[in-house]
Amino acid sequence: MDIHDLITSLQEKNDNKIVLLVSDGIGGLPQKPGGLTELEAAKTPNLDALAKIGVQGLSTPIKPGITPGSGPGHLGLFGYDPLRFIIGRGALEAAGIGFEMTDKDVAIRCNFCTTDAAGNITDRRAGRIASEESAKVVETLKVIKIPGVEIFVEAVKEHRFVVVFRGEGLGDAVADTDPQKEGVPILEPVAHDAASKKTADVAKQFHEQAAKILAKQPKANNHTMRGFAKKPHMPSYAEMYGLKAACIAVYPMYKGLASFAGMKLLGNASTLSEEIDILEKEWKNYDFFFVHFKYTDSRGEDGNFDEKVKMIEEFDKIVPRISALKPTCLVVTGDHSTPAKMASHSFHPVPTLIVSDLARTDATEQYGERNAVLGGLGQFEAMYIMPMAMAHAGKLGKFGA
Amino acid sequence: MDIHDLITSLQEKNDNKIVLLVSDGIGGLPQKPGGLTELEAAKTPNLDALAKIGVQGLSTPIKPGITPGSGPGHLGLFGYDPLRFIIGRGALEAAGIGFEMTDKDVAIRCNFCTTDAAGNITDRRAGRIASEESAKVVETLKVIKIPGVEIFVEAVKEHRFVVVFRGEGLGDAVADTDPQKEGVPILEPVAHDAASKKTADVAKQFHEQAAKILAKQPKANNHTMRGFAKKPHMPSYAEMYGLKAACIAVYPMYKGLASFAGMKLLGNASTLSEEIDILEKEWKNYDFFFVHFKYTDSRGEDGNFDEKVKMIEEFDKIVPRISALKPTCLVVTGDHSTPAKMASHSFHPVPTLIVSDLARTDATEQYGERNAVLGGLGQFEAMYIMPMAMAHAGKLGKFGA
Repeated sequence: MDIHDLITSLQEKNDNKIVLLVSDGIGGLPQKPGGLTELEAAKTPNLDALAKIGVQGLSTPIKPGITPGSGPGHLGLFGYDPLRFIIGRGALEAAGIGFEMTDKDVAIRCNFCTTDAAGNITDRRAGRIASEESAKVVETLKVIKIPGVEIFVEAVKEHRFVVVFRGEGLGDAVADTDPQKEGVPILEPVAHDAASKKTADVAKQFHEQAAKILAKQPKANNHTMRGFAKKPHMPSYAEMYGLKAACIAVYPMYKGLASFAGMKLLGNASTLSEEIDILEKEWKNYDFFFVHFKYTDSRGEDGNFDEKVKMIEEFDKIVPRISALKPTCLVVTGDHSTPAKMASHSFHPVPTLIVSDLARTDATEQYGERNAVLGGLGQFEAMYIMPMAMAHAGKLGKFGA
Repeated sequence: MDIHDLITSLQEKNDNKIVLLVSDGIGGLPQKPGGLTELEAAKTPNLDALAKIGVQGLSTPIKPGITPGSGPGHLGLFGYDPLRFIIGRGALEAAGIGFEMTDKDVAIRCNFCTTDAAGNITDRRAGRIASEESAKVVETLKVIKIPGVEIFVEAVKEHRFVVVFRGEGLGDAVADTDPQKEGVPILEPVAHDAASKKTADVAKQFHEQAAKILAKQPKANNHTMRGFAKKPHMPSYAEMYGLKAACIAVYPMYKGLASFAGMKLLGNASTLSEEIDILEKEWKNYDFFFVHFKYTDSRGEDGNFDEKVKMIEEFDKIVPRISALKPTCLVVTGDHSTPAKMASHSFHPVPTLIVSDLARTDATEQYGERNAVLGGLGQFEAMYIMPMAMAHAGKLGKFGA
């Protein structure tokens, strides 16, 4: 029996509340071997108080040694096997700009490019056109109409934009039109199965209309299409866990990922404090809250150890506001580590803390990497955080008699 | 390669002996966060002495967060993947009363119920008829005869009883006849595949005869049938491990589960001391003994912390008698935790101790939850206890050259 089916079959509904508090990229590394990590260097009295009464361990985002992007990282956190539920690149790009896909949509990552008079690509990234300029060009494409489908064209960054086709019978098995090299023409969008023929045909029409509109542009006079993808097929939180689930995040990417799981996107916070305002206000209306804090990852990506430490300390300060709401189960974790030393996501496991009346308290007294090694949860794959949270909230029945 | 096939291919026969000593539900929780668990509070000098020379860790019965019933809990302990080998409800009910199924059997969980003159169910549990009265009604059904099958009818408890059909060509894909609500008639037993048509037909005949016999009963004047199930198909201990395996248990459920694995059921003990008498007496005749102690689970289920502590201390006292037999490998574990605080089975991992001349002794000096977190076995799924026991008993060869 599959773990997702098992959880679905064991779900029990009650009013107990779960908070999944994610500090993005919170795990780190010492700057020099033997030193303290960002989390260990930070003063975190509130998280440490929780460590004393809770149980911690280390979650491996995917498998040992694997560094996740935000997509698979969060899918694991949300309890989906990240090697089974793959988010197509187009859908991830749409999520990244906060575009809420429906089941009728196919999303496509598009690049502006430059082609010469013969139609051969001379620059695959249209001279890395600036975001502001690119956004204006994207606006000119919004006039495109194709019978039988609704079309969305949204800017992303620099030469990148997203196109979404919405309609009946749109498969996503369509080959990229980007030949991945210059001096050759843009490829035709070829359908790999019968269910995707309409999509390929729509893509061709879109490209023809776009090429005419773009013809007068100095750099972005053409475009390629990649990563045709429907919304990923995954059981929703309502289906798998029986949860009325909500997402509180600042950045569009995390809202998009949460929407794939069927979470309700709450409010329009721009700071962590505003996120907790929303949490307090909506507390009675949901039984699961995913709360996302971005800046631990951002400062890690910047390679700035001291600033990441400060962000962790900011994160720590809001914890009492969450505890005051008395969730039945509070999980504190990250989707991956982002060591300032590496200035990037990493494969290192993530300190993960569960606070609940059913937690089997361990001997650790601080939340952090060295303590998590000695914690009662041991080391486990991130996709088991949600089953554990459900269990610690009294929301999973017994398997077998 | 599947782990079961791997173990089967590596088995080596010798006279070394393994004892799998199971204290049901031994794992627990502190009554208050930060306190001691039942096992930590108990005085266990004998188990602690073994912890000093052995190696311990925490076994997860199924997967993190999953609370097992006794069936999947023991299947894991016996080394079967409990998500792959599922025991049908009828077979588990038969096991629960110690009925030894054969490959020709289909077992069915039956409920006495009350129906009105129109044949509609008025009480799905026949007024929760007392066990003693129910057992007498069950006796009246033993006269039922159906050509081509042997029939067993056995009382369970209150309104519940078990029917087993034994014969050739009896599939178990038959729908429940319990409509799960009152005010409607009992359903027909419908076969879901061709191989189960005979079973459905036999069930129909059984129900017709039973209904006539029961008609004069005041409460239990009818019955429903659920969970049609053949004996689970799993490799036996002889096949998978090459072991001559025996079970020493007091309660029928555990004997039934052991019989699915092909273990010989020894004696008729009613106390732990009598179980060890049997172990001593039969020591030379088998190379694997599953010894089951029930009362740690019972007192946990009662929610009685102090009494569970006492049961653990009783369990500890018999350990020297087992050690005196000098098993090559002694495993001390439980099938799951049963914290008195929850008065139920739980998902928490179980302290598991291996004593063997090949154990890589760890630094822990007491058998218990906090120590097991720091033990040399780490955290692992219970289905790997048997491979580890086999290895520690020198009964598994090398994989590959």
